[in-house]
Amino acid sequence: MTSLLDRVRIVLVATSHPGNIGAAARAMLTMGVRRLVLVAPRLFPDADAVARASGATEVLDAARVVASLDDALAGCVLAVGLSARPREFAGRVLPVRAAAVEALAHASHGDVAFVFGTEMSGLSNDELTRCGVVATIPANPAYASLNLAAAVQVACYELNVAATGGEVWRAPRFAPATADEIASLYAHGEKTLVAMRFLNPAHPKRLLPRLRRLFARRGFEREEVNILRGVLARIDELVERARGH
Amino acid sequence: MTSLLDRVRIVLVATSHPGNIGAAARAMLTMGVRRLVLVAPRLFPDADAVARASGATEVLDAARVVASLDDALAGCVLAVGLSARPREFAGRVLPVRAAAVEALAHASHGDVAFVFGTEMSGLSNDELTRCGVVATIPANPAYASLNLAAAVQVACYELNVAATGGEVWRAPRFAPATADEIASLYAHGEKTLVAMRFLNPAHPKRLLPRLRRLFARRGFEREEVNILRGVLARIDELVERARGH
Repeated sequence: MTSLLDRVRIVLVATSHPGNIGAAARAMLTMGVRRLVLVAPRLFPDADAVARASGATEVLDAARVVASLDDALAGCVLAVGLSARPREFAGRVLPVRAAAVEALAHASHGDVAFVFGTEMSGLSNDELTRCGVVATIPANPAYASLNLAAAVQVACYELNVAATGGEVWRAPRFAPATADEIASLYAHGEKTLVAMRFLNPAHPKRLLPRLRRLFARRGFEREEVNILRGVLARIDELVERARGH
Repeated sequence: MTSLLDRVRIVLVATSHPGNIGAAARAMLTMGVRRLVLVAPRLFPDADAVARASGATEVLDAARVVASLDDALAGCVLAVGLSARPREFAGRVLPVRAAAVEALAHASHGDVAFVFGTEMSGLSNDELTRCGVVATIPANPAYASLNLAAAVQVACYELNVAATGGEVWRAPRFAPATADEIASLYAHGEKTLVAMRFLNPAHPKRLLPRLRRLFARRGFEREEVNILRGVLARIDELVERARGH
């Protein structure tokens, strides 16, 4: 599935600051998106782009520079244009998550593009009409000012989740305790609590059910049972010694 | 619903570069998350933080600086620790999307925290064990190097979507054409195509169904029908004139 991300072009139109191109390249590579197309960048290549790419120079090295948005979109079966603000001539408007899912669905037919405008004003209306889908990143309406690389980061994150399912590593698994080990622990605990005179067997109230509820929530690993048995054994010794006085 | 975001603390532990604090503040505010807690930052306040915050100084001005992670988490009903890499003692591990949903569910009971470690090495094992949930941003395993502000951006984006539903603006609606207006358009179009000798009524083949299919896909607005009728009328004039020669 991940290879569908190889069908995605990130298109940056008329970027003013090469540092933003570098930061966008880093954002792309963190999400497994590698194909960068630059439409008439003001400055590229540039040392600032390399500095901000922070190791993602393979994306910069492979970047294509073209003269027009039409050149950038040649061969694409779907272009998604990012816009933070409502536009009069937008055709279909989707949240970026839905746009990423749709783009990946199209990617089995050919290349797809996510198109980002200038830092100051985004894509022009004319550029947006070249995009079959307009995507918006949900944001704070009072301050929707994501910088270019941040917008690329969120879009590529959604593309990665759409392509891979968004699975992450799992917590390590340790040997679980068995039911009889847990029963022995509770029996030991109850005996110790009585010996400590913390629990009165004649009036147990709800202490034991509460403790069972506390520990039952997440289950026991064997190691945890062993640790608690060790603590109880130590308390038992203290109770014995205190009685000796 | 958005007020649940006011229950979210973004906790940055031992941040080295104040510029990253500023960029994180900007990322937070774009997503409507405002409460920043800094655990023993190397340098804060600092001009670099203000510069990178780019207008989100209200977040910096209200930031709390504390000495320890325990101080930062006091009063929180859930702490979510971000970690890019697998950890031996992680309890529950969730993708950041699921962690955001869970955090917002807890936020109706009290404050919740999203905790980010240092730029170089993230959270320590000791710090992570203070977090009930470990969250990971799905990423390219070969290059998972999101910078701090980028990780804050993605996490706050997911919190915003979890809090608001992720709705965005809708495409403008124009008056749709009625069925009879569309039928008249097709009738006019067919007549014109015959007059142009582009369509032979004796052998119509599949031209008309293909055209209907093309246009049916998206529906017609009234204005679009009017434009197309105008084009047809102009073609009709040209056909008349050409016959006159």
